[in-house]
Amino acid sequence: MNDLSDIPSVMHEIGRRARAASERLATAPAEAKRRALEAAADRLEAQVAEVQEANERDVAFGTDKGLSPAMLDRLRLDADRIAGIAASLRAVAAQEDPVGATCAEWEQPSGLRIRRVRTPIGVIGVIYESRPNVTADAGALCLKSGNAVILRGGSESFHTSSAIHACLVAGLAEAGLPEDAIQLVPTRDRAAVSEMLKMTEFIDVIVPRGGKGLVGLVQQEARVPVFAHLEGIVHVYLDAAADPVKALDVVLNAKTRRTGICGAAECLLIHRDALDTIGQGVVRALIDAGVEVRGDRDLQAIAGVTAAEADDWGREYLDSIIAARVVDDLDAAIAHVRQYGSGHTDCIVTEDNAAADRFFTELDSAILMRNASTQFADGAEFGMGAEIGIATGKLHARGPVGAEQLTSFKYIVEGDGTVRP
Amino acid sequence: MNDLSDIPSVMHEIGRRARAASERLATAPAEAKRRALEAAADRLEAQVAEVQEANERDVAFGTDKGLSPAMLDRLRLDADRIAGIAASLRAVAAQEDPVGATCAEWEQPSGLRIRRVRTPIGVIGVIYESRPNVTADAGALCLKSGNAVILRGGSESFHTSSAIHACLVAGLAEAGLPEDAIQLVPTRDRAAVSEMLKMTEFIDVIVPRGGKGLVGLVQQEARVPVFAHLEGIVHVYLDAAADPVKALDVVLNAKTRRTGICGAAECLLIHRDALDTIGQGVVRALIDAGVEVRGDRDLQAIAGVTAAEADDWGREYLDSIIAARVVDDLDAAIAHVRQYGSGHTDCIVTEDNAAADRFFTELDSAILMRNASTQFADGAEFGMGAEIGIATGKLHARGPVGAEQLTSFKYIVEGDGTVRP
Repeated sequence: MNDLSDIPSVMHEIGRRARAASERLATAPAEAKRRALEAAADRLEAQVAEVQEANERDVAFGTDKGLSPAMLDRLRLDADRIAGIAASLRAVAAQEDPVGATCAEWEQPSGLRIRRVRTPIGVIGVIYESRPNVTADAGALCLKSGNAVILRGGSESFHTSSAIHACLVAGLAEAGLPEDAIQLVPTRDRAAVSEMLKMTEFIDVIVPRGGKGLVGLVQQEARVPVFAHLEGIVHVYLDAAADPVKALDVVLNAKTRRTGICGAAECLLIHRDALDTIGQGVVRALIDAGVEVRGDRDLQAIAGVTAAEADDWGREYLDSIIAARVVDDLDAAIAHVRQYGSGHTDCIVTEDNAAADRFFTELDSAILMRNASTQFADGAEFGMGAEIGIATGKLHARGPVGAEQLTSFKYIVEGDGTVRP
Repeated sequence: MNDLSDIPSVMHEIGRRARAASERLATAPAEAKRRALEAAADRLEAQVAEVQEANERDVAFGTDKGLSPAMLDRLRLDADRIAGIAASLRAVAAQEDPVGATCAEWEQPSGLRIRRVRTPIGVIGVIYESRPNVTADAGALCLKSGNAVILRGGSESFHTSSAIHACLVAGLAEAGLPEDAIQLVPTRDRAAVSEMLKMTEFIDVIVPRGGKGLVGLVQQEARVPVFAHLEGIVHVYLDAAADPVKALDVVLNAKTRRTGICGAAECLLIHRDALDTIGQGVVRALIDAGVEVRGDRDLQAIAGVTAAEADDWGREYLDSIIAARVVDDLDAAIAHVRQYGSGHTDCIVTEDNAAADRFFTELDSAILMRNASTQFADGAEFGMGAEIGIATGKLHARGPVGAEQLTSFKYIVEGDGTVRP
């Protein structure tokens, strides 16, 4: 490795190695990739103490630096969380290998047999804040999909990420795969991020994971394509035909289970006909659960509801706050989501199939739900083992991005001396 | 429409209308879209004389401007070609509607039922040279996939494209669909192209169709994502286990059927063991067919073969010329294609399944063929009705791009009051 202060040259070398590794990875047997991930999980479980020690150094650094309690919580790893990371590695290992799978197959009148077969994309760059688990999840998903990955974790999680990365590299070595398949940028210098964003020669896709500041910067500056979402302005709409129990369960879980994740509900829309029968009870339950409800004029009649300002619509709180509003009908609910949503996840609570169909058809969020908590907006809950992120763009990847969406495809065409007239 | 000399404002207005139309199109019934395309084909067939008259004006203009014979040929429409364009509209109309189709469906242990459903992307921009048929093909495929489209044809085909566009708009009107769904930029001013390339607010994807100059410019300047290929540096490799008849048929067709299309062979690789048995005959047949064969030293022993220079490898002739070279084995053939290919289409002629498997696995072109002419690299020949272009990028679209690849998807998630633990 070059002198760490010469960032462009350090990053160029990392990029070159990643590209070389990706060429070997593209034809790596599924079994080797599976074995590497299992071995990495074994290693991680054997090194809980070392990882915790590294994590303590990071937490101390983060505390000194004045990180918010929420960020410190995300950074902190106890034995349970480390076990969770290892489980996630095993879950990705157990997934079907996407590379080489035939996703479509047909025959043409000319006699040609055509197959569309999955291939890796190449090299993925992941830029994340201080969530050490991303090191393992992103590394595992990229390996599974035959892509090399360049990981650039937050400076506050540097030691923890390095310790987890060492386990991944040990797994690669044990399975005979190139160690450059999963590289961690070895410097905290922010210039490395700027460098990654323009490395079109070496990086095919960038996935940013973190707050609006980080994602916005990446989306704005990247010359490499980006899979990301800027915000999760998640709506739950209680329809006139909502079931009262489901409404209560779904809204409470969607808002309160964890308030800091992108699938947490940020705005509640209530059909006027359901206001007295269901809406009031749901709003009161939220207040009882400690949630600040910022309501429109109709809802301010309920004790404890504060007045919503204009800028509460379309706002991502990531906190124990929810905006709430009464709408006259399904059309008004759809119009509100279109205007204020971020295309991440939106939910309707209804027993009316026609209403659900319209909600699903007329809205175009990455994830549309019915009678289910929006906190399910997550790759593991979608059955992907883990996720590298959630995308709201419409090209290539959308919604939770797992190994399958980190692949491209090629056409295999077979004839028998077939020529075109 | 605004003053046509104020290009930014003209294009902004076109973009705004396209976005508005795309929102209506996204939920347009499959039957209405089918009907619009059928009606457009009817109209085109009824207006052959008018279209030909418009075309004659363009051909006269192009002749004065000194267009090459190949470009004039592409520009010229006779009654047969117009019938072909109408047939292509009907072929797209007859395709299954991709929008709303469920492409995957599963249930999670949590009880959630998850469906991945196709949706339109939004607005597609198509920038093309003087191939009037692109007006119809691109318009039809975008409509079929529920996308609005902004067409910017070559200035030499302006009248022809306008006449074809009028038929498409008549079809939209007859089916009750927004006429802004298919817009043609109403000016020949090249500034309109530069404007399109940065209209990220209104255009989701740009598809350039034309020569290396146009595509290179678009790829370099576009701030909107691009589906394209720069060159088709197409290789045909005659393996040691090639069948002699198939070898002859495939190579001759791949090189000579039409030399100006991107799927035309540009380089012939011959396994040393097949040189005397098959290679010599194939090379002689090419020469007899009027093809200039630029060979390496081994091949220069054959009468009529000229000497290849270093820059003949990796060159796209789009003409009656082919580079040819003897390789020692499959590894050398694969290495040559990796080094000099453009990832468009490459072909192996062999009866050896293991050799074909290695060719398919170790190469990563958008299209890999066996015992079939590379001139089949075409959306219609792939069963897509038509193609908007061929892409060699690895994100979203790859190979021939038909209606299906002009879609994105969303997740529909249904629960029963399901909450996340």
